[in-house]
Amino acid sequence: MALLFYSLDDDAESWGRELRRHLPDLDYRVWPETGDLAEIDAALVWKPPPGLLRSLPNLKAILSLAAGVDAMLADPTLPDVPLCRLVDPSLTRTMSEFVLLQALKYHRGLDVYAGQQRAARWRLHLPLPPSATTVGIMGLGVLGEDAARTLRGHGFSVRGWSRTEKRLEGIACFSGEAGLDAFLAETRILVCLLPLTPETRGILDARLFARLPKGARLVNVARGAHLVERDLIEALDRGQLAHASLDVFQDEPLPPDHPFWRHPAIDVTPHAASYGLPESAAQLVAENYRRLREGRPLLHVVDRARGY
Amino acid sequence: MALLFYSLDDDAESWGRELRRHLPDLDYRVWPETGDLAEIDAALVWKPPPGLLRSLPNLKAILSLAAGVDAMLADPTLPDVPLCRLVDPSLTRTMSEFVLLQALKYHRGLDVYAGQQRAARWRLHLPLPPSATTVGIMGLGVLGEDAARTLRGHGFSVRGWSRTEKRLEGIACFSGEAGLDAFLAETRILVCLLPLTPETRGILDARLFARLPKGARLVNVARGAHLVERDLIEALDRGQLAHASLDVFQDEPLPPDHPFWRHPAIDVTPHAASYGLPESAAQLVAENYRRLREGRPLLHVVDRARGY
Repeated sequence: MALLFYSLDDDAESWGRELRRHLPDLDYRVWPETGDLAEIDAALVWKPPPGLLRSLPNLKAILSLAAGVDAMLADPTLPDVPLCRLVDPSLTRTMSEFVLLQALKYHRGLDVYAGQQRAARWRLHLPLPPSATTVGIMGLGVLGEDAARTLRGHGFSVRGWSRTEKRLEGIACFSGEAGLDAFLAETRILVCLLPLTPETRGILDARLFARLPKGARLVNVARGAHLVERDLIEALDRGQLAHASLDVFQDEPLPPDHPFWRHPAIDVTPHAASYGLPESAAQLVAENYRRLREGRPLLHVVDRARGY
Repeated sequence: MALLFYSLDDDAESWGRELRRHLPDLDYRVWPETGDLAEIDAALVWKPPPGLLRSLPNLKAILSLAAGVDAMLADPTLPDVPLCRLVDPSLTRTMSEFVLLQALKYHRGLDVYAGQQRAARWRLHLPLPPSATTVGIMGLGVLGEDAARTLRGHGFSVRGWSRTEKRLEGIACFSGEAGLDAFLAETRILVCLLPLTPETRGILDARLFARLPKGARLVNVARGAHLVERDLIEALDRGQLAHASLDVFQDEPLPPDHPFWRHPAIDVTPHAASYGLPESAAQLVAENYRRLREGRPLLHVVDRARGY
């Protein structure tokens, strides 16, 4: 019984050290030093190459290093074993912090001032209280709900939209296609924190942008495939959207010749919004691995039909 | 008895409306429509032209529209009557919000990512918890203390430096020339919120930058004259400082040919960090004007020898 680690973006050594604090007898193997593949019963992975998981004959569970598992679900060779999302305080905290930063950036007009700086133009825009700025969050899962509460705590007017109806104190909640128009109509800063599913793929498109108030800003911290890239550039160039902050992309790393890098109204960050620190996230992974060995139900298992 | 308003950056109409809510019988005059100058007993001003206040023969008090009064004190024709600073919740809140935004911007590396974007370079820097980032605040007056508490509330490690010794819960406090070295040595993000006085003029200079850790960032939201501009550019170009966010300048508006506009490691905002909304700030101004008419002591009178 061994746990295989695969990620090009996470620190294998820190994860091994932290997992062993919870599971001192752990047989921890870091790809490509897998040893006998038949001994591996669980895999802890981020963006595994297609086919890797299928090559493990006795795999019993896949533990994701991320909250979103869309890339794995898109792998037609994915073994039919429980797949668990990462839910972790540090993952949530770093995401909410990043969303707060982006909301403050737009609320205080740093995008406007950056444009003025390029033109050496001095013009003051009087700051408004945060209650005058409406931030709309699409997706009210663990990450969306925490981000909404964080923004609310700062004083923003916050609204949320989700597939199924939710109730959150102090946050105007909308749901389904029926609620989308009303949700978008007053949203000045739109934050996408949806899971990527067949229903949400391409949801950030021209039709949606047209329903936002003119000059709205977009923050995409979910998945690149939520966004129709050409529609975004058109909406920015027409002024329907004023600015966008993108942390996720159809192709990652974003190719060097991609127009997003050079667009004056787009801020690019390299999938940096959220990160599960092994110091805290190892606890859930260790708990799930312990449950697996003891034959108990795993936590945060993905509903494959739903996609999250 | 009349109150004269002078500001090119504040909305005279809103101020008149809000002041009259507290003082229904107020004789409110907006420059240049002053009427009989001899009837004016108080002036509510931001950056009045030198000589304007001296031209008011019966002036009894000067009420500042800003927290800092250095520009007025630099006017050799300033009448010798009580001069009151603006202290107001909205002024404080907008400043703390702006400081939080700048601290988050640097904590999450948006300056680094902006540089990478210019080079179309994808490289992730794993986010650290805010407790791993030390923000140092110079100046622990009303604004500095509130900014320190706001940063602390978010989870940053916060330290403060002031002329005289202070104690603030959860904040490492340093004071005087003797405490400056220790204060600077661990400060990764330096925020200047000092009053501008003969002692603090030019305090942000090469000698001070050299005492910060290499790669520190600077946020100046106090006064342009705190900063030795040439020393900043040299420190940025040598890499001693990594980035600076400047909201205040020796000459405002910043002249179009000033090198700060085009420096890749400087973000310029047009004295936009803090603003006293008349909706809340009118209360203190009205209270001081009422006190003046009733012969009672005014609030927040500047100590001219100290400079704030």
